[in-house]
Amino acid sequence: MTGRDGGADLHPIGNAPVVILVRPQLADNIGACARAMANGGLFHLRLVAPRDGWPQEKAWRTASGADRLLDVATVHPTVADAVADLHHVFATCPRPRHIVKPVLTARGAAVELRAVSTRGLRAGLLFGPERAGLDNDDMAQADALVRFPLNPDFMSLNLAQAVLVMAYEWWTADDGTPPRTLMTNETAVATKRSLENFLTHLVDQLDACGFLRNLPKRPGMVRNIRHLFQRGEITEQELRTLHGMVTELAIGRRRRGRMEGEFEA
Amino acid sequence: MTGRDGGADLHPIGNAPVVILVRPQLADNIGACARAMANGGLFHLRLVAPRDGWPQEKAWRTASGADRLLDVATVHPTVADAVADLHHVFATCPRPRHIVKPVLTARGAAVELRAVSTRGLRAGLLFGPERAGLDNDDMAQADALVRFPLNPDFMSLNLAQAVLVMAYEWWTADDGTPPRTLMTNETAVATKRSLENFLTHLVDQLDACGFLRNLPKRPGMVRNIRHLFQRGEITEQELRTLHGMVTELAIGRRRRGRMEGEFEA
Repeated sequence: MTGRDGGADLHPIGNAPVVILVRPQLADNIGACARAMANGGLFHLRLVAPRDGWPQEKAWRTASGADRLLDVATVHPTVADAVADLHHVFATCPRPRHIVKPVLTARGAAVELRAVSTRGLRAGLLFGPERAGLDNDDMAQADALVRFPLNPDFMSLNLAQAVLVMAYEWWTADDGTPPRTLMTNETAVATKRSLENFLTHLVDQLDACGFLRNLPKRPGMVRNIRHLFQRGEITEQELRTLHGMVTELAIGRRRRGRMEGEFEA
Repeated sequence: MTGRDGGADLHPIGNAPVVILVRPQLADNIGACARAMANGGLFHLRLVAPRDGWPQEKAWRTASGADRLLDVATVHPTVADAVADLHHVFATCPRPRHIVKPVLTARGAAVELRAVSTRGLRAGLLFGPERAGLDNDDMAQADALVRFPLNPDFMSLNLAQAVLVMAYEWWTADDGTPPRTLMTNETAVATKRSLENFLTHLVDQLDACGFLRNLPKRPGMVRNIRHLFQRGEITEQELRTLHGMVTELAIGRRRRGRMEGEFEA
């Protein structure tokens, strides 16, 4: 099953945690998990006693190009064997009971996994089988449990979705993207001087056409127009468009004015 | 398709954003999206021109009990129609080009959606069709774009996974779960006095058996034992177990001592 063509060119990034699927039932789900892992930069997959054996063609079909992860996945007879060379093990578990163990949110776990990884230690994430989840003996192998904050009235997550949430949090824990930016492509956010030039042009034309003829109200109206155009981080390109619009509207008015004058003549 | 039995008893929570699937192709995906929405407490689903019409039985089969969302989903001919009654619209979009628009991370969007919702305004989240994604006209209907921080070498997310990430962030933005807690169930974290009682018991027995007989090293060894037991937030129940272990090991040693004595006699 190794050396297939057509998969994405995926390379492990740093010392990322190992994903350990414990007694997974469906090969489709194993493939979907590989895809979710690749989304979040997790590359090391271990399978503990997959129900239908391994490898299975179906997994590669649902991996959407994350073939490489499946090519190098390893199979282990027990959880103990799968975690033997790791330093930290976290177990995902929706409803743990009768157990004394630290419980982390997915985000809390991601932050701790990053810290573990930075120290050069190897971590693993246990995910239970589709229906039953991890059993008590599996959880006893873990340093901590991970519970996702989700709607308590509807916690049912499929295996690949659980892997995706952890992979997404792992990636995000090291991501510096600002929560809000302005994408401007070939143009740039306008300077206040450029904006002022446009506002002067606009107000001149509004004076000329008589829109601002109520002199007591004029200052407030001008201020409101200014507020409106300040709100949206206007770009230089958009200001050029606005200049053009105002100019053409004014010319159109004068042209129409002349035509009306002609009719009146 | 309304009034089915067997679905989860899902009720809208507060003023949650509307999920708008634009020209979705596969009914299975629509059902999987409903499931992901329910996971994160999103309940209002709108479909713009679903390729194969609506309703479709298949969607209910993949919704895993989130039937109610599908029962009340509405169908719209255009994006403009689907967003007409909303105040804010965010469009998820992996690779926008040639467009000037604020770009939010999924987390940034969730925080802004919570703020919008708190002000009593209605927000919507646009998701494009499975293959092509949203087109430029769709994106022009949105206040801002949302891009998930994910592995740039493997961005391929299926529709339900994209919905899950946003639903998860929406839920998490209002979730106060501490990143790490200790789950203790029927027991409680031990007080320092209880721990000290145990350590005294342990050190007494270690003195009695001769483990600490090297007097110059004794203070350091006692300190290291103390450090070890301080690390793990030991519970009262666990201390009772440890007391019992130490007592039984000491009795066993004395019993064995007596037996050995008897043999020697």
